[in-house]
Amino acid sequence: MPASYAYLGPEGTFTEVALRTLPETATRELVPYVSVPAALDAVRGGEAEAAFVPIENSVEGGITTTLDELVAGEPLMIYREVLLSITFALLVRPGTKLTDIKTVTAHPAAQPQVRNWLRQHLPEAVWESAASNADGARLVQEGRYDAAFAGEFAAARYGLEPLVTGIHDAENAQTRFVLVGRPARPAAPTGADKTSVVLWQRDDHPGGLRDLLGEFATRGINLMLLQSRPTGAGIGNYCFCIDAEGHINDRRMAEALMGLKRICLQVRFLGSYPRADLRPAEVRPPLPGTSDEEFVAAADWVARCQDGRF
Amino acid sequence: MPASYAYLGPEGTFTEVALRTLPETATRELVPYVSVPAALDAVRGGEAEAAFVPIENSVEGGITTTLDELVAGEPLMIYREVLLSITFALLVRPGTKLTDIKTVTAHPAAQPQVRNWLRQHLPEAVWESAASNADGARLVQEGRYDAAFAGEFAAARYGLEPLVTGIHDAENAQTRFVLVGRPARPAAPTGADKTSVVLWQRDDHPGGLRDLLGEFATRGINLMLLQSRPTGAGIGNYCFCIDAEGHINDRRMAEALMGLKRICLQVRFLGSYPRADLRPAEVRPPLPGTSDEEFVAAADWVARCQDGRF
Repeated sequence: MPASYAYLGPEGTFTEVALRTLPETATRELVPYVSVPAALDAVRGGEAEAAFVPIENSVEGGITTTLDELVAGEPLMIYREVLLSITFALLVRPGTKLTDIKTVTAHPAAQPQVRNWLRQHLPEAVWESAASNADGARLVQEGRYDAAFAGEFAAARYGLEPLVTGIHDAENAQTRFVLVGRPARPAAPTGADKTSVVLWQRDDHPGGLRDLLGEFATRGINLMLLQSRPTGAGIGNYCFCIDAEGHINDRRMAEALMGLKRICLQVRFLGSYPRADLRPAEVRPPLPGTSDEEFVAAADWVARCQDGRF
Repeated sequence: MPASYAYLGPEGTFTEVALRTLPETATRELVPYVSVPAALDAVRGGEAEAAFVPIENSVEGGITTTLDELVAGEPLMIYREVLLSITFALLVRPGTKLTDIKTVTAHPAAQPQVRNWLRQHLPEAVWESAASNADGARLVQEGRYDAAFAGEFAAARYGLEPLVTGIHDAENAQTRFVLVGRPARPAAPTGADKTSVVLWQRDDHPGGLRDLLGEFATRGINLMLLQSRPTGAGIGNYCFCIDAEGHINDRRMAEALMGLKRICLQVRFLGSYPRADLRPAEVRPPLPGTSDEEFVAAADWVARCQDGRF
C-alpha cells in the first residue's frame, strides 16, 4: 500500500488542519489534490492509501460533491471522521483598514458562514469566489482582492495579517471530514460508532421513505444524518444518504441493514467507523430488547421454536 | 401592491427565461436582483409583489440558499412553480476554436452539470467561477476567459457564438423555480397541486423522523421532496423541507398537517400551489379511504357516535 493520504488541497486550508489531527498522518505523506473527485480518484486508482475530504457542515449541511462521489462510481468506504470548529479570520495585506476593503474573496462554501458578518460590517463589499480559502488568501497577497476569509493559520503563509478574527455566523459552526479508502473489513466496534449507507427506493409511493426509516426505528437505532441526493433521473428522483448510530457488527444494525437490503432497490454500505464525538449510541427513549444479547437470545428462541424445543 | 416581480438576476439567465413563461409577467415590471436573499427581501420589504428564484435542480438537488431563506426570517409563501429543462451552450468569442480554450467559466451551480463533458472534451481547461452564467458570458466578451457555459439565448446579448450546444451531463436536467410572495390565502385547488412545509422535530430519538413521515403516509400522501437543512445548532441538527402531493384544502392534507402541528416543535407552511407538471396526486398503491368524501363521511360518523346516533 502506498503510504500517502490524498486530501482536498491546497495546503493551508481547514481540511489540512483537520487531517493533521489524525495521529497516523505523522508517518504518511500528505498530498493535496485540486478537488474532492480528484482526491477520491487517487484512492480508486491506487495512487493514495486514503483520501481526506469534507462531508458535512453545520451551516451548509451535506457537502454535495463528496456525497455524490460516494454515492456513484467505484465503491469506497469511510474509515474515520474528524470534527473541526470553523471560525474565519479576515486576512488583509499589512496596513489595510476595514474602510479600505472594496472586494472580499473565499471559497463559495465560506459565504453562508460569513454572510451576516459581511452584511453588518462590509455591506458594500463585492464578493468574488475563489477556488479555496487558501487560494483567496493568495489572490489578496497578489493584490487582486482586498481581503480574504480564511483560517487564521493561513495568514503567515501568505504574508497577510488577520484584521478580524473569530468570524462565524452560527455558534458551534463545525465541519465534519472523513477519511475514505477502498472497501475492506471495517474496524472493530468501539462502543461509539456510526454507520453510513446510501439507499435507493424500489419505487415512489406513499409511505415508501417512512418504511425505509422504519427498519432503523423498529430496532431502536437513531439517525444522525438524512441527506437526499438526486439520482440524475430528473426532478423528484432522490436516493438517501443516511448516517445511523451504531456499528454493522451490532446485531440491531446488522438486522436493520438486512431489512433495508430486502426492501430497497439498492443499498450501498459506506462503512462503520468511530464517532468523532465519542458518544455511545443512545437508545432514547430506552427501547427494551435492543442490545446484542437480546438479539442473540431472540434468535436462539426462534431457532428452538423451529426445532420444537421451546 | 407594486406591480413588479423581483428575480434572481442578472438578465439573460435561465431564471429570466423561466419567469417569462408565466403569462402574468406580461403586465409586470421584472426587476433583477443580485442574489436570492436580495430578491426575497424585496418582497418582505414591500418593494416587489413577488420574487422568482430557483429552488430545486435535478442534478444538484435543493438550492440551499433559497431553502434556507424560506426556512428562516419573516415567513413567505410559494404561489407558483415553473420547471425548465437546462442545457448549456459553450459560448465563445467569434472565431475561437475548441483547441484555443484554456479557461472556462460559469456559475458554480453549472459545474456539476457540465463536469463530464469538460472531462471528455476540455480536460486541461481551468475552471473559474462566475457570479452568474450571464456574468460568465460577459467576462468572455471582455476577454478575461476563453469560454462560458450559459444558455444559448445569452450568446447574442454578449456578442458571442455558441461553439457547442445541448451540453448536459444528465438526461432530463431540469431546474424548478418558484414564485414567492407574502403570506395570503393559497389559490384554490386545481386537482394537481403540491404543498410545501418545513418541519422541526421536538427532540432527536429513534423513529422521530419516521413518525413525522407517518403523518403523510397514514393518509396516503406521497412525498415529492425531502431536503434536510441544518438548524444552525451544530452538526447533526436538521429541520426538514418537504413537498407533498396535494393541497391544504384537501381533507387528507389538512389532517396530515394537523397531525404534524401536534407532534412537531414547529411547522412552517410554505404554500399549496399548482404542480408545474399538472399531474394529479397519485395514491399508489390505491389506498382506500383517502378521498375528501371519505374523510367527510368518517368525520360525520365519529360525530354521530359522539351523539349516540350511529
